[in-house]
Amino acid sequence: MENPVPAQSAHRAHIAPVELTKAYRLLNHGPTVLVSARHGGVDNVMAAAWACALDFSPPKVTVVLDKAVATRALVEGSGLFVLQVPNAAQVDLVHAVGTLSRVDEPDKLARCGVELFGMDGIDAPLVAGCSAWLACRLVPEPHNQAAYDLFIGEVVAAWADTRVFRDGHWHFEDAEPRWRSLHYIAGGQFYAIGESLQATAASQS
Amino acid sequence: MENPVPAQSAHRAHIAPVELTKAYRLLNHGPTVLVSARHGGVDNVMAAAWACALDFSPPKVTVVLDKAVATRALVEGSGLFVLQVPNAAQVDLVHAVGTLSRVDEPDKLARCGVELFGMDGIDAPLVAGCSAWLACRLVPEPHNQAAYDLFIGEVVAAWADTRVFRDGHWHFEDAEPRWRSLHYIAGGQFYAIGESLQATAASQS
Repeated sequence: MENPVPAQSAHRAHIAPVELTKAYRLLNHGPTVLVSARHGGVDNVMAAAWACALDFSPPKVTVVLDKAVATRALVEGSGLFVLQVPNAAQVDLVHAVGTLSRVDEPDKLARCGVELFGMDGIDAPLVAGCSAWLACRLVPEPHNQAAYDLFIGEVVAAWADTRVFRDGHWHFEDAEPRWRSLHYIAGGQFYAIGESLQATAASQS
Repeated sequence: MENPVPAQSAHRAHIAPVELTKAYRLLNHGPTVLVSARHGGVDNVMAAAWACALDFSPPKVTVVLDKAVATRALVEGSGLFVLQVPNAAQVDLVHAVGTLSRVDEPDKLARCGVELFGMDGIDAPLVAGCSAWLACRLVPEPHNQAAYDLFIGEVVAAWADTRVFRDGHWHFEDAEPRWRSLHYIAGGQFYAIGESLQATAASQS
């Protein structure tokens, strides 16, 4: 991946592309995500617990963007957004970008400690320090957007930090605890993802 | 809640209604769910990692039901389904109902060890031993169903086992490990939900 923006942190060295056929696995366990977008020279980032995989190939996602959030207009204007999977080290950042609004706080991103970076060919900002990123092209569905605040995206590129996702799998159990994904409930309370459990194969007689 | 079916297990004593305004919290952390439905005298249960909250009030959910799954026709026929949040004690059951199809295995539920029970006024089966249940009325959206396998439901009633969800909150950290919700990845591998993390309040100057 060529880097159109000077790398500002060492984390770039660990970012690797994720095969599109495996991209659903980045969201399959239901993490709370950050949604970022850029339009008309404005970048913004919000938190969303209501994001979900929708299809394997081509990979698609859903995300709920309330009419009150500033990021929604950027997504509608540019037709592009990024879902990123943040981690336990970012719990305060995630809660802050989910609480403050750019409408009230024009310097929201700086106040929340958000560092952005770019990826070649993607005209949307990515949030540094996350575990994974899915760049999505908006699949316009005006009825869903108006009636349900429900947005559909097709994943056009995905990346992950190889310290926690590699070879098509999460490696939470081998990584430092700061890499655990976050699963929001309410009132600033999250759960980190926990222990790996392997099911016994279903009996196939 | 009156009980239209004889209680078959002691777990019924711990099931309490969840306020509809708090029902989204049952799904907010992104657990893999079981989807159950009944139509024409047939009950079925499947697993779905792609289920998500969609709205607070009235609470709505989305769930992806592939055209190949037998449960889809039951949902389309009855206009009703139940999302239930299974737990670590049920990992083999969840993987089994997600792997076997009623199309190939008419006795799927018995083979998977699924015990069903009923709730008054809900003409759909509930799976015993889960942590929470959301009974949903299908909100018909033929385009979403046909184009994306995406189904929308309005939650009409919700219940939880008070040993793990009470007073509007999950209590994973105080409950036995068998109550942890399951978050599917692939190949029979799940993660259990983990540690509770409280974000520091966003600075509001």
